[in-house]
Amino acid sequence: MHFISETESNGVIERDFILGEITGVLWSPTSGNIGAPLLLSGHSGGMHKKAPGLVAGALHSVATHGFTVAAIDAPGHGDRPRTPQDQRWTDAIHQALAAGEPIAPIVIDYNMSLAGRAVPEWQATLDALRALPEIGSEAPIGYGGVMLGVVTGLMLAAVEPRIAALSLGAVFVDDALIGAARKVTVPVEYRIPWDADEIDHAAAVALYDAFASKDKTMHAHPGRYNNQMPDYERGNSGRFFAHHLGRAVDTTSV
Amino acid sequence: MHFISETESNGVIERDFILGEITGVLWSPTSGNIGAPLLLSGHSGGMHKKAPGLVAGALHSVATHGFTVAAIDAPGHGDRPRTPQDQRWTDAIHQALAAGEPIAPIVIDYNMSLAGRAVPEWQATLDALRALPEIGSEAPIGYGGVMLGVVTGLMLAAVEPRIAALSLGAVFVDDALIGAARKVTVPVEYRIPWDADEIDHAAAVALYDAFASKDKTMHAHPGRYNNQMPDYERGNSGRFFAHHLGRAVDTTSV
Repeated sequence: MHFISETESNGVIERDFILGEITGVLWSPTSGNIGAPLLLSGHSGGMHKKAPGLVAGALHSVATHGFTVAAIDAPGHGDRPRTPQDQRWTDAIHQALAAGEPIAPIVIDYNMSLAGRAVPEWQATLDALRALPEIGSEAPIGYGGVMLGVVTGLMLAAVEPRIAALSLGAVFVDDALIGAARKVTVPVEYRIPWDADEIDHAAAVALYDAFASKDKTMHAHPGRYNNQMPDYERGNSGRFFAHHLGRAVDTTSV
Repeated sequence: MHFISETESNGVIERDFILGEITGVLWSPTSGNIGAPLLLSGHSGGMHKKAPGLVAGALHSVATHGFTVAAIDAPGHGDRPRTPQDQRWTDAIHQALAAGEPIAPIVIDYNMSLAGRAVPEWQATLDALRALPEIGSEAPIGYGGVMLGVVTGLMLAAVEPRIAALSLGAVFVDDALIGAARKVTVPVEYRIPWDADEIDHAAAVALYDAFASKDKTMHAHPGRYNNQMPDYERGNSGRFFAHHLGRAVDTTSV
């Protein structure tokens, strides 16, 4: 893992890194926080490791809870080259959007392919991050994501015992995702923007039902996107991770 | 409204009151808090105005947020006489429970009858409470309840514009309740214990869908009862009311 840039602002250090073909970014508190919980943040399809909503959430987690947050570009996203097959999927999505046709069937196939490739990349990233002295091998690990980030997180959590808690947003549900959810036993919070395009409510509930986790909550809120959740619920994911990953909540966040 | 007792403990004054046939209780901060939000708390069927969970929630709301909280016994509950018809419903519920038969059909009819009688009682109680100098006519008003308390709250909110926010728990859903929900436009949070007996998930989602409120959230959590929600979500109702009723949250609560 090579750090290729470092900037500091408002108590947060941002470092871009490269690990083999993986391009990523790590946010940590300037004050240092060895052994603090590490959150992995999965961006949605078409976005990248520094998607505005992802960055806002990461900065909040670092500043408010003292967490460390890492994000990597999905294959073919951000700073990474796109394969011809990925390009065909992307073109098909744009054509469907332009024609006013549903994109979910295309996105489901594309995301599952991307997630299958991203899982070993996240595992390699985890190995490298835990080898850093400022993180360490004992840091409890959570994962959060939306859309593609949900698919990747579920495929990762189904095979990776180091993931101790999952915070998930909107996603297109199919049988493969339900199958992955059945293997998940760690605490899960699942947030559904109830007016999202092509999000089937019954399928969303079926995904919630599929989690094998004893501790799982489902939250529906108005709007088409997860960032439209009510203000008074914005701090909830931080409290969720703080509870499960063992860090006292900084109460200035509420 | 006549106060018939007053006790004080841990910064909270508890006063029992009588208003005509209504028996009730009012919890307020000893420090005084004129114009603070007033929460109305509706107990579940078979319980009473000082049901343990209701009292715990009330004390938390007063101590943490400085709210005033009022509860009244439903007709035929707590300190109030039961009519022969109510007795027949109660007997039928007990017989169904003993026989291992579903109680929801009986409870739905019984609760709708109780709620119909409780709505004007809550309105009279509201009038009397707002006439108290320590509450005042400008206090913003929220309502919270579980089971019978949900039915009563929805029937009340559908006709009573002074109710500015609703926090609802488990309830048996029928068409009449759906109809009341369609008249509700104020912010709602709806908490579903996902493993509750005789709670149909699709019906619960249909109730959420029925609210005409622009600001509405649905939260599912494991367990058969609302008090089994995860620890890290316990403060959420206080934050919900604090946001909508205009009182700063005391951050010691999280």
